[in-house]
Amino acid sequence: MAIYVASRRLSSGTAAATLRYATAMRSYSTSFREERDTFGPIQVPSDKLWGAQTQRSLQNFEIGGERERMPEPIVRAFGVLKKCAAKVNMEYGLDPTIGKAIMQAAQEVAEGKLNDHFPLVVWQTGSGTQSNMNANEVIANRAAEILGRKRGEKCVHPNDHVNRSQSSNDTFPTVMHIAAATEINSRLIPSLKTLHTTLDSKSFEFKDIVKIGRTHTQDATPLTLGQEFGGYATQVKYGLNRVTCTLPRIYQLAQGGTAVGTGLNTKKGFDVKIAAAVAEETNLPFVTAENKFEALAAHDACVETSGSLNTIATSLMKIANDIRFLGSGPRCGLGELVLPENEPGSSIMPGKVNPTQCEALTMVCAQVMGNHVAVTVGGSNGHFELNVFKPVIASALLHSVRLIADASASFEKNCDLKAIARVSYACVTSLNPKIGYDNAAAVAKKAHKEGSTLKEAALKLGVLTAEEFDTLVVPEKMIGPSD
Amino acid sequence: MAIYVASRRLSSGTAAATLRYATAMRSYSTSFREERDTFGPIQVPSDKLWGAQTQRSLQNFEIGGERERMPEPIVRAFGVLKKCAAKVNMEYGLDPTIGKAIMQAAQEVAEGKLNDHFPLVVWQTGSGTQSNMNANEVIANRAAEILGRKRGEKCVHPNDHVNRSQSSNDTFPTVMHIAAATEINSRLIPSLKTLHTTLDSKSFEFKDIVKIGRTHTQDATPLTLGQEFGGYATQVKYGLNRVTCTLPRIYQLAQGGTAVGTGLNTKKGFDVKIAAAVAEETNLPFVTAENKFEALAAHDACVETSGSLNTIATSLMKIANDIRFLGSGPRCGLGELVLPENEPGSSIMPGKVNPTQCEALTMVCAQVMGNHVAVTVGGSNGHFELNVFKPVIASALLHSVRLIADASASFEKNCDLKAIARVSYACVTSLNPKIGYDNAAAVAKKAHKEGSTLKEAALKLGVLTAEEFDTLVVPEKMIGPSD
Amino acid sequence: MAIYVASRRLSSGTAAATLRYATAMRSYSTSFREERDTFGPIQVPSDKLWGAQTQRSLQNFEIGGERERMPEPIVRAFGVLKKCAAKVNMEYGLDPTIGKAIMQAAQEVAEGKLNDHFPLVVWQTGSGTQSNMNANEVIANRAAEILGRKRGEKCVHPNDHVNRSQSSNDTFPTVMHIAAATEINSRLIPSLKTLHTTLDSKSFEFKDIVKIGRTHTQDATPLTLGQEFGGYATQVKYGLNRVTCTLPRIYQLAQGGTAVGTGLNTKKGFDVKIAAAVAEETNLPFVTAENKFEALAAHDACVETSGSLNTIATSLMKIANDIRFLGSGPRCGLGELVLPENEPGSSIMPGKVNPTQCEALTMVCAQVMGNHVAVTVGGSNGHFELNVFKPVIASALLHSVRLIADASASFEKNCDLKAIARVSYACVTSLNPKIGYDNAAAVAKKAHKEGSTLKEAALKLGVLTAEEFDTLVVPEKMIGPSD
Amino acid sequence: MAIYVASRRLSSGTAAATLRYATAMRSYSTSFREERDTFGPIQVPSDKLWGAQTQRSLQNFEIGGERERMPEPIVRAFGVLKKCAAKVNMEYGLDPTIGKAIMQAAQEVAEGKLNDHFPLVVWQTGSGTQSNMNANEVIANRAAEILGRKRGEKCVHPNDHVNRSQSSNDTFPTVMHIAAATEINSRLIPSLKTLHTTLDSKSFEFKDIVKIGRTHTQDATPLTLGQEFGGYATQVKYGLNRVTCTLPRIYQLAQGGTAVGTGLNTKKGFDVKIAAAVAEETNLPFVTAENKFEALAAHDACVETSGSLNTIATSLMKIANDIRFLGSGPRCGLGELVLPENEPGSSIMPGKVNPTQCEALTMVCAQVMGNHVAVTVGGSNGHFELNVFKPVIASALLHSVRLIADASASFEKNCDLKAIARVSYACVTSLNPKIGYDNAAAVAKKAHKEGSTLKEAALKLGVLTAEEFDTLVVPEKMIGPSD
Repeated sequence: MAIYVASRRLSSGTAAATLRYATAMRSYSTSFREERDTFGPIQVPSDKLWGAQTQRSLQNFEIGGERERMPEPIVRAFGVLKKCAAKVNMEYGLDPTIGKAIMQAAQEVAEGKLNDHFPLVVWQTGSGTQSNMNANEVIANRAAEILGRKRGEKCVHPNDHVNRSQSSNDTFPTVMHIAAATEINSRLIPSLKTLHTTLDSKSFEFKDIVKIGRTHTQDATPLTLGQEFGGYATQVKYGLNRVTCTLPRIYQLAQGGTAVGTGLNTKKGFDVKIAAAVAEETNLPFVTAENKFEALAAHDACVETSGSLNTIATSLMKIANDIRFLGSGPRCGLGELVLPENEPGSSIMPGKVNPTQCEALTMVCAQVMGNHVAVTVGGSNGHFELNVFKPVIASALLHSVRLIADASASFEKNCDLKAIARVSYACVTSLNPKIGYDNAAAVAKKAHKEGSTLKEAALKLGVLTAEEFDTLVVPEKMIGPSD
Repeated sequence: MAIYVASRRLSSGTAAATLRYATAMRSYSTSFREERDTFGPIQVPSDKLWGAQTQRSLQNFEIGGERERMPEPIVRAFGVLKKCAAKVNMEYGLDPTIGKAIMQAAQEVAEGKLNDHFPLVVWQTGSGTQSNMNANEVIANRAAEILGRKRGEKCVHPNDHVNRSQSSNDTFPTVMHIAAATEINSRLIPSLKTLHTTLDSKSFEFKDIVKIGRTHTQDATPLTLGQEFGGYATQVKYGLNRVTCTLPRIYQLAQGGTAVGTGLNTKKGFDVKIAAAVAEETNLPFVTAENKFEALAAHDACVETSGSLNTIATSLMKIANDIRFLGSGPRCGLGELVLPENEPGSSIMPGKVNPTQCEALTMVCAQVMGNHVAVTVGGSNGHFELNVFKPVIASALLHSVRLIADASASFEKNCDLKAIARVSYACVTSLNPKIGYDNAAAVAKKAHKEGSTLKEAALKLGVLTAEEFDTLVVPEKMIGPSD
Repeated sequence: MAIYVASRRLSSGTAAATLRYATAMRSYSTSFREERDTFGPIQVPSDKLWGAQTQRSLQNFEIGGERERMPEPIVRAFGVLKKCAAKVNMEYGLDPTIGKAIMQAAQEVAEGKLNDHFPLVVWQTGSGTQSNMNANEVIANRAAEILGRKRGEKCVHPNDHVNRSQSSNDTFPTVMHIAAATEINSRLIPSLKTLHTTLDSKSFEFKDIVKIGRTHTQDATPLTLGQEFGGYATQVKYGLNRVTCTLPRIYQLAQGGTAVGTGLNTKKGFDVKIAAAVAEETNLPFVTAENKFEALAAHDACVETSGSLNTIATSLMKIANDIRFLGSGPRCGLGELVLPENEPGSSIMPGKVNPTQCEALTMVCAQVMGNHVAVTVGGSNGHFELNVFKPVIASALLHSVRLIADASASFEKNCDLKAIARVSYACVTSLNPKIGYDNAAAVAKKAHKEGSTLKEAALKLGVLTAEEFDTLVVPEKMIGPSD
Repeated sequence: MAIYVASRRLSSGTAAATLRYATAMRSYSTSFREERDTFGPIQVPSDKLWGAQTQRSLQNFEIGGERERMPEPIVRAFGVLKKCAAKVNMEYGLDPTIGKAIMQAAQEVAEGKLNDHFPLVVWQTGSGTQSNMNANEVIANRAAEILGRKRGEKCVHPNDHVNRSQSSNDTFPTVMHIAAATEINSRLIPSLKTLHTTLDSKSFEFKDIVKIGRTHTQDATPLTLGQEFGGYATQVKYGLNRVTCTLPRIYQLAQGGTAVGTGLNTKKGFDVKIAAAVAEETNLPFVTAENKFEALAAHDACVETSGSLNTIATSLMKIANDIRFLGSGPRCGLGELVLPENEPGSSIMPGKVNPTQCEALTMVCAQVMGNHVAVTVGGSNGHFELNVFKPVIASALLHSVRLIADASASFEKNCDLKAIARVSYACVTSLNPKIGYDNAAAVAKKAHKEGSTLKEAALKLGVLTAEEFDTLVVPEKMIGPSD
């Protein structure tokens, strides 16, 4: 298999000189075994569990290299689904010996233990048939091993046993939904909740820091830094609402529709039972799709969920942009926030601190907006009984989920912000009516220069008494409606 | 004013020779009156109700010409809002004589009677300040007339009276939400409901027509045409759910936040009262936004709603594509549906019937997907206390709402579909096991040639008895799971 | 016709109560005449030149209202094309009396004189057939009038004479290219050239103003404001290159391909002659498309040109964003540029100056990015011999051209920028090594307070001699590579 | 390092239980060495060449996992650039011993031999600083080894030697352009050229097959299958023109601009020399950017090139869609093309052949359209002297280049198409005038049924003589303009 990897590497560098896998494989025949499908025999690496159809796809779709492999959450979801299918199929007569072996093998797939046996890329058949067969073949061979048999013997059959009562056309949309729901619940929602909590606590921490407001990027009336962060916290809270609103349609599973949505070759009730089994396995409220034709032919639910991620990206772009501008400086910027120093900022400009977490986050937002268009284009191009942009929809959606989840978590963890005292500088504007613009400016400058409060500076300059100051400068009066 | 229009026309044709309005206006001074703002006096066409700030914007933003005017639903929503503001302001001390005149004038704006007095384009200040001032000026002048006074006198003041307790920064996001909610409830939802009903009834009408299924565009197992249309109906039903899910956040109104969200210069309770007044006026469940900072600085709610329209566009694109392919032919296409003849299809090919309603609808979908990106880009580029892409967000969102509503209605009204009998042809595949492929094909061809049913053809050919046929060809058995 | 307009207005307000045109028209039969097509007779408003097919489209496609009418440049391009077609058709035997009348009528269309007679919206047949027929009908009726005959008589026939040797399928893509090329050459390129010249002259004007550089929004090494504007000028210059690079493919005309690209029903050489005639008429280097199948079935050239506009939008977004941030303040912003005061900025905050031209321009950029997606989706969804997203592609592309052209011109005209002296403040950092941070800061503050130069302040404070200052502060050494 | 990998794997599965690298590393201190930067010491895996800054980035940006690593072409381009920089720096005084070691180490990076030492993800600092430092650190350590010294000793210094005269701010945009130009020239253009040749040869192969044309998906006048494929070939040819048109701006290199574009800390002429060195090394016509400010602050050139890929995606989407529809069937589709059987199509429907290569290709197109939006959003959001969306722009652009190149190659290789004889069926329409519709239909059906030619069928039926047939059915007359 080292040879196989080497050939991939080479081929990615020098496209012209691509060594064909088959060639490479044949010349090292001792490391290969023969697998078969309806097209005949084919050589498969001995140390891999996959079978003939997976191998064919590998050779027919050399697109993008290894980083384009079907996302891991899809592979794991296949594990979940195939385990549940075996369980339900035993109720409908599947030999329990085989059924239990399939369940055990599928469990290993669900846990990510067999990831190396899922080499296929996203850019394959648009129904994901080949990844479904990859799952069937790996589970069948692994189940055979569990039963003490050999790979390739088909004592556990990929189609007749593992894929029983199923079609790629209903399994792939099912794993799309299982994977999306799982990733959203286990990664995205926790990350956003933590980010919300942090922004909310910053809003409280900064509640007394009165600062200049800015509209059209121009100086406007004051507000507190806490109010500003309260806006950010609200955006993230609504983002959680938004993605949650879309989940009821993601929780609908296509399984049971088989080839075209009619459920031909399944038994009545199979669809309900398998959705219940998946719900139990994942602890998420999956149900069977009320209309299987829609569930195979369209992926509107994925487009909708991607739309909620697009909105969240919009929110995070705004928040991260604000933070990097509020933290701009140190001397020629807005300088209201202190950004954390996490790494050297510049080799050529020593001591530079950059808003790197903001940058990673906003780049993620750009990609999520792009992925949303990919999902939309894919979603709109289905024909008749089957949308055949399934893998790209799944891949782009899961990519977006992962990126927002991880980047939000990274931002929350690595971007601890502090406020700079001088943001209260804007408060001085309320002194204008009493002591005039020039005196007010002098107070502000003295305070800034000496790092003191406005009040201390005003008293030192003798332009106001303490009582007068307290009467005039009442931030609470400037940051809300009057009674 | 004829001159004014003429100059616009000319300028749109020959950009180089643009006549400046001011010039044109001064030379015909009898048709103009003087209006003033803090920048001084300016000539305004006598027959128009707008004032100085509107006139300045007209001259400073010659972008796109008349078809780029602020959408009518925004103008009407300004009418609603200003009426409600006057009503609430009277509770807080606004002179009732003036207040009632404002309410009457605002009502005329709400009814669309003063549309011609709103000449400003979308491409202006990003806060919509100039359209807010346009509304203030028109309503002030109209209210003055109602009170028997002259235009331009400012006995009713655009700022002090009409805009009282308001800022462009909270009025414009408020009218964005009023306009979106109104258009969605009065146009979009009814159109989609009607479309859903029609597709649903087609699903029932076609429930016994068994036809070939198609996956990957290739022949697959059969289903009924009714099942296929049931998928479409479900897509539209879910589309209704999708857009409805986003409305709770659209029903939140920014009004009361004034310049930066703090509500400076309003009275406590103003925000709640005005939301209640708008709710009563529109009969929609508007409430005051729980966080005004978010409501001014971000338009995530619009991005989210636009996302739901993007998903609906995805659905409609799929449905319309299917219908035009199913109706392709008449001789060299799929030929399963008969499209209505609404107009001559081609001058060069007499008798051609084209799926023109599908084409209009899918073009609308393309524009809606594009508008969604415009809304997303605008929504993600807000800074600090104010997003200044408000007009483009409003314009693109309302454009999408209108286009989907109208195109769905047009499609529903003008695209009455009929099924062609021969779609049941696929049923013949169930004869294969009994009489062999060749005989089955002969039955199908005879039926097709003679326009008879499969059964008649089979009996004439003598390959089956009636009983045998009835046992074998049971569409119900082919279009669902087995017991 | 007043009735007709009124019904449109009403219907746009209360969708439920839409009055149907036909009804309205029949009840006022004195203002209508009868026109006919292959579908039979239909009532048309007497004062309009259009015929039966236009009228049918009006009634079948009530989508979006008047602001969705086919863009004027398309109408004018139809005038150009039909004039040229008549000219070439006379070479192939068209009766010169009729031919000349058509040429005269078409000239009026080309000049925009008959715009009111083109009521159809973008959202119609995807081939633009109905707009082609609208042009044929209007020109035929107008030519008849020129010849002293009546409207509707068909002495000049819309199909046989005006549309001779043409099909909608080749005329519409032809007018798309004529309109795009004309608008780009007459509007967009001049606007961008003027903008480039202005930015370039600003770059020269600001060449000696040394200022802080900013990377990651953080203070970095200095550069001149002129260098910064030099970057903007280069972006616009390259933008001009970009759009110009795409024109060779826009200059290819589909005319001569007729229905499917084969040219059936035209004569050999017609395609070359008509392209030459259009080139002569417009003074632009149009040629006949080398492959007519591509020219009908795909609109890649429009997608490509839209892509160049998308890139220009990217550039302008960056430039306008920079300018509004550099002009932020006046006291709590970056404050390096003075924005022009073109209008009152805020009612609630008197004296506020907002970067309104930047806002209009960036909103335009957002819409152009959105339109690009609409064009892309439309362009990718063609099938077989004809792309039927022609009107939306044309509309979105021309919208983008117009918006960028107008907004660039408005920005250039109304956004005269001045630099603030204190941007040279950053220079003071080069004094640090000699006089220490505190003294350097004192110099900067004194200069800022008194509005003097750094050198004057340093001399007054007595921290440096003039010679020392001149040796230390050499902006030229800081703003380029060393020898 | 096994531990490290394991922890990554685990963390990707169970986000909540993420083991921190630092922890894992410290507990296995024997496998780590200490590296230092200005932030102090940090543990780095002993078997890796990277240094302190890379390690910090790994820990600060846990976003997306391994498949999000900086694309390999960027890594290789860093090898090219650093080699050239060392070469030029030796001219400016860099110690030749060190310089040559750097060149040798950089060459290994350029060849992809050190890929495993570049672990950083795309989602990092927006300037790509950390990947630049990764390259500097790896090359410095590898050069030290070449000189017989130890890793981490800094006898070859990452900043002072490897990064000499450079800043991340000019190196990263330089490698973006080197990588894009290299991938386009070595992968994309060859793939598209091969695809063009194949489509062009199909156009010749099918030149005599007359078939029905389809407009609006409806039957239209005939053309040859060769003409149809000629349209596709032209689309691909123009696609090659399109991407080539954008290269002159990609060939401009930012190197020499250093931190903000001024070239501070480089020597005069460095920029020109290094562009020449890169040109020589890559055999591509790179030049120094005429304006370095534009080259750092904007990535319009990447947006433009991405736009050309977006147009190519539009073309390929159209071509692949047509082919799958023309190949639809076998019995209930258009059935004009035979798609190759490359793999089993369906487990549930034996014998099914699916247009899988079309599906992979169209999915790629959807992703490319999405990536284009990501690039556009990133490109439009630069601020001041530096666009900090560099990694996402590079990643999305290179992703699109690779996907189109590979998918086009896969399509070309695996999607060999054959035409089905009966496409000439449409020819029969030319018999109508002579023998009437019913007889013509009989001829067509007989030919279809017996698999014979139309002429044979007509003669057998006795409705025409051979001479008559030859006179009437002259495809050449139907597929072009008349003389």
